[in-house]
Amino acid sequence: MIALPTLISRAARHNPSGLATRFGDRDTTWTALEARVSRLAAGLLSLSVAPGERVALLSLNSDRFYEAMFAIPWAGQVLVPLNTRWAQGENHYALADCGARALVFDDHFRQQAEALLPTLKQLEHAVYLGDGNCPPWAVSAEGLIHGHGPAAVSGRSGDDLLGIFYTGGTTGFPKGVMQSHRALWASAVGAMPDYHMNRDSVFLHSAPMFHMADLAGSMSATLAAACNVILPAFDPGQVLRAVADKGVTHALLVPAMIKMLINHPEAATADVSSLRRVLYGASPMPAEVLKKCLETWPGVGLAQAYGQTELAPIATTLSVADHIEGGVKLKSAGRPTSVSEVRIVAEDGSDCPLGVTGEIAVRGPHTMLGYWNKPEETAKALRDGWVFTGDAGYFDGEGYLFIADRVKDMIISGGENVYTTEVENAVIGHPAVQDVAVIGIPHPDWGEAVHAIVVLRPGHSATEEEVINHCRGRIAGYKLPKSVSFRSEPLPLSGAGKVLKTELRKPFWAGWERQVN
Amino acid sequence: MIALPTLISRAARHNPSGLATRFGDRDTTWTALEARVSRLAAGLLSLSVAPGERVALLSLNSDRFYEAMFAIPWAGQVLVPLNTRWAQGENHYALADCGARALVFDDHFRQQAEALLPTLKQLEHAVYLGDGNCPPWAVSAEGLIHGHGPAAVSGRSGDDLLGIFYTGGTTGFPKGVMQSHRALWASAVGAMPDYHMNRDSVFLHSAPMFHMADLAGSMSATLAAACNVILPAFDPGQVLRAVADKGVTHALLVPAMIKMLINHPEAATADVSSLRRVLYGASPMPAEVLKKCLETWPGVGLAQAYGQTELAPIATTLSVADHIEGGVKLKSAGRPTSVSEVRIVAEDGSDCPLGVTGEIAVRGPHTMLGYWNKPEETAKALRDGWVFTGDAGYFDGEGYLFIADRVKDMIISGGENVYTTEVENAVIGHPAVQDVAVIGIPHPDWGEAVHAIVVLRPGHSATEEEVINHCRGRIAGYKLPKSVSFRSEPLPLSGAGKVLKTELRKPFWAGWERQVN
Repeated sequence: MIALPTLISRAARHNPSGLATRFGDRDTTWTALEARVSRLAAGLLSLSVAPGERVALLSLNSDRFYEAMFAIPWAGQVLVPLNTRWAQGENHYALADCGARALVFDDHFRQQAEALLPTLKQLEHAVYLGDGNCPPWAVSAEGLIHGHGPAAVSGRSGDDLLGIFYTGGTTGFPKGVMQSHRALWASAVGAMPDYHMNRDSVFLHSAPMFHMADLAGSMSATLAAACNVILPAFDPGQVLRAVADKGVTHALLVPAMIKMLINHPEAATADVSSLRRVLYGASPMPAEVLKKCLETWPGVGLAQAYGQTELAPIATTLSVADHIEGGVKLKSAGRPTSVSEVRIVAEDGSDCPLGVTGEIAVRGPHTMLGYWNKPEETAKALRDGWVFTGDAGYFDGEGYLFIADRVKDMIISGGENVYTTEVENAVIGHPAVQDVAVIGIPHPDWGEAVHAIVVLRPGHSATEEEVINHCRGRIAGYKLPKSVSFRSEPLPLSGAGKVLKTELRKPFWAGWERQVN
Repeated sequence: MIALPTLISRAARHNPSGLATRFGDRDTTWTALEARVSRLAAGLLSLSVAPGERVALLSLNSDRFYEAMFAIPWAGQVLVPLNTRWAQGENHYALADCGARALVFDDHFRQQAEALLPTLKQLEHAVYLGDGNCPPWAVSAEGLIHGHGPAAVSGRSGDDLLGIFYTGGTTGFPKGVMQSHRALWASAVGAMPDYHMNRDSVFLHSAPMFHMADLAGSMSATLAAACNVILPAFDPGQVLRAVADKGVTHALLVPAMIKMLINHPEAATADVSSLRRVLYGASPMPAEVLKKCLETWPGVGLAQAYGQTELAPIATTLSVADHIEGGVKLKSAGRPTSVSEVRIVAEDGSDCPLGVTGEIAVRGPHTMLGYWNKPEETAKALRDGWVFTGDAGYFDGEGYLFIADRVKDMIISGGENVYTTEVENAVIGHPAVQDVAVIGIPHPDWGEAVHAIVVLRPGHSATEEEVINHCRGRIAGYKLPKSVSFRSEPLPLSGAGKVLKTELRKPFWAGWERQVN
């Protein structure tokens, strides 16, 4: 049975004097890290938070985040990483929902922790993860580490609940995805052929570490006993300098971040010669970004991962070999990893033939246990061992998965299904268009009408008619945008880098009720 | 929980019309294979062999072997692949030991099956896997397949016993290694970064499929939904032709086989352009073989795997990147896979420091459940979740594992430990020496004396004194061979390609008792 925190001991055994984490000027070896994690676990247990009880973690990226992430399950407690972009009210919801007994927080969230603490009766403990003075209403993580000997690692493992991961909440209330030790381990093992890390590797964390994508990257780096270089948050200039200064070899990014990196003024001169591989997720790589990426970073292999929090998180990967200019598979999400099984389900529950779009369902040792305290949502999403992803997609004849859309973003116009990704691919080809999101807006006759929200390139212009005409012939008539609006702001993105279509739809749907499967 | 036979359904889902097996002129798609396996399972269940009861498989390599290997656990029965090189008496021992209820056999083993059947009371059923006429004392596998609809896959999974794998028996009686569904799955997943297969890959089986090394290769190929090209047995000319004719991309071999392939008269002209990767095991790659291999097969990546049946079987791998001429790591067994944890244990049970040799112990989800019916041997080999391998080795400062010796092959001479591999590496450097095995032979004063058994290159000669003098200065005085014997036959090899030192020691130890840890 896999106990996730024992990966720390394994890395310390395999690479004792190697660096586990590098944050700012602070370097920690695997041996030192194992000692800190096991002592922090002893300290967390001393707070009388029992194994199985929830401990929330609200912190920007840091080496201390990495330690706490392993110390909590080392103590047998259940890890609940909170979304650092959430408002206080949202974090209050999550803390109340999971009944957190303790909140671990850093300097950045000091005020929010202080405000939250008195509002939740069961939240008895606050643990300060920062480098400054510990507030009087909290105990200091450093104090716990120095005041305790190492705890034996908890016996919780395998199917036991490791953590609760609140999903982005693009619709309704956030759901707490319950993940087991085994699921996180399995997803990380399944990603190893694509990450291709070993103990000589240096993995950069610039995406938020609370998010399942980067958290899974942490697991892969730990499996490899590689070095974790940690930035507090994503900043393209800082990323480029970290790559050069710390010899970063591997990174997890989203296409939007890659775009910012290759368009950064320092991109041409930055020394990224150490970089070997970039795994990206959340969306396919636009052809233009790939082209520039291959030019700017000729030695870097790009691989895409597709999944979701419920899959801990990886289901399929698009290999480095498929990332060639003009590659026919570039718009696909690749093939199932060796731990994952993927099927395409029609509305009647049968399997869709090749090329036919249906809902993507996934099973394997990496699937969630369910949603915390949400039996109805769990029953809907988890059926016969399959996680129904809410994404629509199809397989081609060579086993590549193409994501057509989020099922809930799909537009039903005059009875026809319109997958917005397909429309977006048509619009983005217009030379004046920098970015686009296609949504369904209410229509009295058709139910929904196809609407494109366009961000133009600086210095370029286009009319609604020109955009629609550009799409004509490229996609069927019923898929053409019926209207186009232009936006000067960038499109709103979720923490995972996905376009927040819920936000974009809101003004159009005021006073209407949208029907979603 | 992983149920190993469901990998067949997974491959059929992901690659329905792809070829699963190719044997002679017979090609079978994954869809057809799933149907055959599930029907054969139904047939096996109709024999009133209950789930959990043992079904032995005695067959040369074939597509039918591959099917039976999955059909038996599909039915929930326990797979016992028998060693095709064993004498009837040895197979009788294994069948009696595990209490097999059925014996699945091919044409090659028809006579042996007929002879074995009446001698074992509990062995009630014989299943004929061949292409000819089914003997009257057996039922035909083809008949079972055609006479039954598909069975639902058994619920056995995870830690449940999947199969019993009898180890080579280099000392004493063979031991039946009990392996779970999870262990075989985990070892295969851990090997994926080194195999680097996908559904476009074509995997060649020329090593014996009953052996854990090739059997694990079958699991990796099935995980990848790759094509299995199967030869009845290893023949270098046939291998070269199969690579050319079937577009083989991946193969599992031992260094002795690779040597035969690159020295074969057809090697220079054979079209091996499809070949991408060769995984080899059992022993490190001699420098001269690697050199010729890189010249003859410039496009082929070589990777080494180290392990044993008890580890299902892989613990460490030496990557393709380490296989460069003059590479300093070539004599190592590489690094632990992402599912494996490896430690070096001193005689007092403590961990050895880097560079210090001790017994290699391994833990992870791929370790055995124990030895069948052998609680004492199990307690000795499996302690606190660690498998004690009986191999001696050490880690270098970069995390590479070096195998010093089998613990039982280690020579204790005048109180000093002599690792035979080290002496062999010194002797093999002599230009006239083609092959060498170093063993301990009885010595009245020192306990054991170092003895080298040398096979000379054709047309070369060397004296005992020349061989010993060649080693002087290369290794310490107490490690020098005290005597040398010359052998005209090749060294005897086990089914896994390891030198059978037990055999070599026998004539020297007649009348003596050898003390082994």
